[in-house]
Amino acid sequence: MAPSLSDVMTPDAAALAAASKGEGRAPLAAGSAEHDLFTGLTRLGDTTLILGHRVSEWCGHAPILEEDIALANMALDLIGQTQLWLGLAGEVEGRGRDADALAFRRDAWDFHNLLLVERPNGDFGVTLMRQFLFDAYHLPLLKALEGSTDARIAAIAQKAGKEVAYHLERSADLVIRLGDGTEESHRRMQGALDALWGYAGEMFLGDAVDERLAAAGIMPTPESLRAEWDRTIDTVLGEATLVRPASDFAHKGGKQGRHSEHMGHLLTTMQWLQRAYPDAKW
Amino acid sequence: MAPSLSDVMTPDAAALAAASKGEGRAPLAAGSAEHDLFTGLTRLGDTTLILGHRVSEWCGHAPILEEDIALANMALDLIGQTQLWLGLAGEVEGRGRDADALAFRRDAWDFHNLLLVERPNGDFGVTLMRQFLFDAYHLPLLKALEGSTDARIAAIAQKAGKEVAYHLERSADLVIRLGDGTEESHRRMQGALDALWGYAGEMFLGDAVDERLAAAGIMPTPESLRAEWDRTIDTVLGEATLVRPASDFAHKGGKQGRHSEHMGHLLTTMQWLQRAYPDAKW
Repeated sequence: MAPSLSDVMTPDAAALAAASKGEGRAPLAAGSAEHDLFTGLTRLGDTTLILGHRVSEWCGHAPILEEDIALANMALDLIGQTQLWLGLAGEVEGRGRDADALAFRRDAWDFHNLLLVERPNGDFGVTLMRQFLFDAYHLPLLKALEGSTDARIAAIAQKAGKEVAYHLERSADLVIRLGDGTEESHRRMQGALDALWGYAGEMFLGDAVDERLAAAGIMPTPESLRAEWDRTIDTVLGEATLVRPASDFAHKGGKQGRHSEHMGHLLTTMQWLQRAYPDAKW
Repeated sequence: MAPSLSDVMTPDAAALAAASKGEGRAPLAAGSAEHDLFTGLTRLGDTTLILGHRVSEWCGHAPILEEDIALANMALDLIGQTQLWLGLAGEVEGRGRDADALAFRRDAWDFHNLLLVERPNGDFGVTLMRQFLFDAYHLPLLKALEGSTDARIAAIAQKAGKEVAYHLERSADLVIRLGDGTEESHRRMQGALDALWGYAGEMFLGDAVDERLAAAGIMPTPESLRAEWDRTIDTVLGEATLVRPASDFAHKGGKQGRHSEHMGHLLTTMQWLQRAYPDAKW
């Protein structure tokens, strides 16, 4: 009785999705400067949104109160950054969608976040390792974006960079404490690292959109961020007595809208209120 | 940044919910015969819907293929019964809502299912025990409904009763096999029974609506179903070498729309497609 996936993903569904968003104007043309910029901005904003949502799932469940508050604050930082990135994306798109509309009324295939950030929370070690792998990329990304030829992007990056410098300091410190901690905490951190490693490589895989944005001086190429990430990772993992996995296999597709099975489940929870009550205000 | 529960549950939300359902006509008056009948029918249909959804969550995850197919078939039986009960409820209500609208466009507080059926699946033992406790009530309920003064209800009960007789045969058999099985399976079945027991009592708690429906000969009082349930439970638990818990504490409120924390999470998944694409057809 349930529809097959291909039924649900027919063009009709896409048309209905478009109609439900109240889009009047034509979509941006693929390959245009505006489309590239919109894509680049949703990659930034979707990544902070999905990670922020994941981290917020810990609220009320963290192992100690201080961690609970720290995680909730970090989630709020990330969601605040999302408002800026997706707000600008909506402005660039010029079709009347604000950050809320982009966050809550798109379906999985229109999200451009990295696969790493949609990974389930797992135990505290998995959440923490995911955060560290991301923070070590996020900070050099924002530092590079501070030099963007687009002044709006440079301004957002400057604000976000201050928050993320603290995120990285914190996650690196905890990775070291737990990696170089008890036998149990070491085992869990190494397990988390091994499990997440295959999702780290996508952060440094560029495509044609990235190349055009980099050529225009708007965003750095993902590849250019790798060397600093490698240095941070090697230093911290070394202090944490954790072994960096040898494989360079990388799952990919999130940036292009191809997501893991976890994404749909995450969206059902994240978008529930706005899907059920589309015009609700408070 | 997130709203508090009381914000989300303000009267405005209810008004928005009503508006989103496209309800033009006035709701049925509480205490009227139509309202009682609608309530009684949604109690039946919501209970089979939520249990059917829970059981369907096993699809592709059951311990052996035969169980996977058996569980999926049972879920389909329950959802088929839901279509009949909620279809009739919509007809009685007379406000243009069909079974789909009732299933997919109401919020938690408008669902009248028993709390037992919204309990999470847990392990296979928990799912099976939940099913047995319910089937042992469901069958005498349907037998009584076959004698309803409302011919539409009697007809649905007759059809459903044949399916449910088989459900009970199957769940009782498995409870005995696993209860009187290995040390591990016995331990799990006793644990499941102990954990679910507090949710069984609501099946036999009547309220004013039940009394009026019983006085009109439309549905039996919940209390009248207890003796047969007790006999079935005692016989099967005895053969299964499981100990019936002594406590008669009963969680209650599901029938009146007061649900556990699990209900909202279940609805986000169950209602996702119809919330995101309200007019989708296939």
